[in-house]
Amino acid sequence: MDVEIMTIGDELLYGQVVDTNSAFMGQQLGRLGLRVRQITSVSDRADELTAALDQARARVRVILMTGGLGPTKDDLTKHVLARYLGRALELHAPTLAHVEEIFRRFNRPMLDVNRQQALVPSGCQVLHNAVGTAPGMWLEDGETVFISLPGVPFEMKKLLTDEVLPRLQTKFNLAPIEHVVVMTAGLGESFLAEKIQDWEAALPANIKLAYLPSLGSVRLRLTGTTDGQPSGYDHDLRPRMLALLPALRERIGSYIFAEEDVPLEVVLGRLLLEKNYYLGTAESCTGGAVAQRLTSVPGCSAYFRGSIVAYDNDLKTSLLGVQADTLAAHGAVSEATVREMAEGARARLGCEVALATSGIAGPGGGTPDKPVGTTCLAVSTPAGTVSKIFTVDRGRATNIEYTTQVVLQLLWQQLMGR
Amino acid sequence: MDVEIMTIGDELLYGQVVDTNSAFMGQQLGRLGLRVRQITSVSDRADELTAALDQARARVRVILMTGGLGPTKDDLTKHVLARYLGRALELHAPTLAHVEEIFRRFNRPMLDVNRQQALVPSGCQVLHNAVGTAPGMWLEDGETVFISLPGVPFEMKKLLTDEVLPRLQTKFNLAPIEHVVVMTAGLGESFLAEKIQDWEAALPANIKLAYLPSLGSVRLRLTGTTDGQPSGYDHDLRPRMLALLPALRERIGSYIFAEEDVPLEVVLGRLLLEKNYYLGTAESCTGGAVAQRLTSVPGCSAYFRGSIVAYDNDLKTSLLGVQADTLAAHGAVSEATVREMAEGARARLGCEVALATSGIAGPGGGTPDKPVGTTCLAVSTPAGTVSKIFTVDRGRATNIEYTTQVVLQLLWQQLMGR
Repeated sequence: MDVEIMTIGDELLYGQVVDTNSAFMGQQLGRLGLRVRQITSVSDRADELTAALDQARARVRVILMTGGLGPTKDDLTKHVLARYLGRALELHAPTLAHVEEIFRRFNRPMLDVNRQQALVPSGCQVLHNAVGTAPGMWLEDGETVFISLPGVPFEMKKLLTDEVLPRLQTKFNLAPIEHVVVMTAGLGESFLAEKIQDWEAALPANIKLAYLPSLGSVRLRLTGTTDGQPSGYDHDLRPRMLALLPALRERIGSYIFAEEDVPLEVVLGRLLLEKNYYLGTAESCTGGAVAQRLTSVPGCSAYFRGSIVAYDNDLKTSLLGVQADTLAAHGAVSEATVREMAEGARARLGCEVALATSGIAGPGGGTPDKPVGTTCLAVSTPAGTVSKIFTVDRGRATNIEYTTQVVLQLLWQQLMGR
Repeated sequence: MDVEIMTIGDELLYGQVVDTNSAFMGQQLGRLGLRVRQITSVSDRADELTAALDQARARVRVILMTGGLGPTKDDLTKHVLARYLGRALELHAPTLAHVEEIFRRFNRPMLDVNRQQALVPSGCQVLHNAVGTAPGMWLEDGETVFISLPGVPFEMKKLLTDEVLPRLQTKFNLAPIEHVVVMTAGLGESFLAEKIQDWEAALPANIKLAYLPSLGSVRLRLTGTTDGQPSGYDHDLRPRMLALLPALRERIGSYIFAEEDVPLEVVLGRLLLEKNYYLGTAESCTGGAVAQRLTSVPGCSAYFRGSIVAYDNDLKTSLLGVQADTLAAHGAVSEATVREMAEGARARLGCEVALATSGIAGPGGGTPDKPVGTTCLAVSTPAGTVSKIFTVDRGRATNIEYTTQVVLQLLWQQLMGR
């Protein structure tokens, strides 16, 4: 079953906004076994939107639209859709009550344009938008399903998940698919692929493997379908997928940090809690990026103590206790210095575990000896201190992001004893 | 003149990758006065790509493609394009020499698939890709220009800027447009619009205003065109645009932090250098996010000393010198505490200026008195210490990002004496 995603709004075409909605929708539709045939971004002009609907309809059976449902005069989606399908706009009383309630709650005067948010094309199934004023809409016309959602990402996500996906599943009697995700870090996609070549080649026809790489990490996603078993849901599918994992672990176990879809910082938090360790960071080149990533996890105060960002060398000495001799002999970007930074952080922040970073993020500051991208990392635990040095330069922002990833990997290896 | 952006690759449709290329291309084309009529993302299947090309050709005169130029068998763009336009693939000797040189430099064996990167459709203008192995291509067929660029963002950006935009400008003899950007912070889009209503209404017809909002900040962009003056470039356009600014300053001057397109952290860096002040941060709820944003600026070590992320309350005392009494009497999330944090950071980090954050980022940790989203900020300078408290909850990640923005705004106000 093919779907077209249509995102509507001049701001997308001008590049004022990056279209992140489409990727989210593509992922969710894919999990249901639907194929996104095309993503089309069009303007707020009625004739262009109508032309795009006409072409999409010839391609797919489901058109999933976002955007153009706001109260201002740019927002045409509902009007164009009603005209295109020859429907009148009708007042939907429960939506009007919901909009009025929102305005009451915020104590704002309600204008006529706001009241118009409760108008929907006749024959439409209204998808209740609990978190906003523009309702979602589900319209069927002949063989085609037209779905219109607001463009505000959190409103779209909630409506898609709660209202749209279950309706699609029912309407098209979709065979459920199962996903098993394995998170890896520390080995590139092509090297992973080489190591698991034989395992991948032996996968049954109804189980597919996808490599989803990001900086320093690769997500492996197995998708199992009940294709060829139209008799309904295959209760053995998931157990059969999980039974493939031991052989995967044999090949790449030392790079697997989770067998579910969670980021490394969440896995680290669980390990730290389990071991009853507090963590702190001593950062130079990452400038707080490691602490920021660790503190993105709700509840991290149960294991994260804090951080000293010693951008200035004097602070490496005064706040972290790095010896002036070490700095003089080896420089700030050296394994000797990061080791002392990590050990100093353990003492000064009062944690069992600390990590440290120091490097030349660029674009300036490189020398022939230590070019831009030279980076030193250390992790100190009750079992001792380890450090490493590497040089990769892919621009300042990526250098910082990559260093953050690699030092968290090193921490994970130390906590796991690998 | 209308352009269609076409991004090619299954990974876009599955949502494995967010299409950031389109927004960049849309911005750049817009600056040239070209209008992006549609953005189309299609799969790696030859028939679907061909159908999309056919439809795009009926809509626009320029089709700008990215993706599908790699060496693997998924990468079909070049082959489909050659077949679609009835051209043979020919070896382009300078590209082959360039690819060979890259393989020599990395000391990697060169395979036949790599050699094939030097094949291009006959009659094509090759756009030299200095930073990768896949060349860009410019093909004209009848009235239509087909441009194909690699999908790797930094390769695409370089080719677009260096090769494509100048060719478009020449080919279509585009009247240059002028942009004047004014950066504001601290006032929402609708409030800004209200304050400058009369000024906006009085803009000449050839100068348009766009509001480009982001969290806590609004970019105002004036776009001036020489429409109606076909005699060529209007040398007075930019001066006439700049002459509009004094009246804008009268209305919203206290919210304008720059009259060029630069982020707040860059403006802060310039101000600190000018005043010869060092800066440090004391962070609780932002967990290092403020330091990270400040250190995203190349050369920041000239004015940024470091940061103490005191997530744990004990560290607020031991590292920042917050009085135990203050914490006991007012709690960690209080104006009294953040003031002491900022003042402590000035002393401990050895800086003239410091800022501090403490709040409940959520989702847990709220109380009836201090619900999730309660946030306290302080900025301490030689002129004294100021603080503020507010409550907004839009989820943990947004709460942290917004707090970071607001504390940098407060710092800017203090440095400007506003």
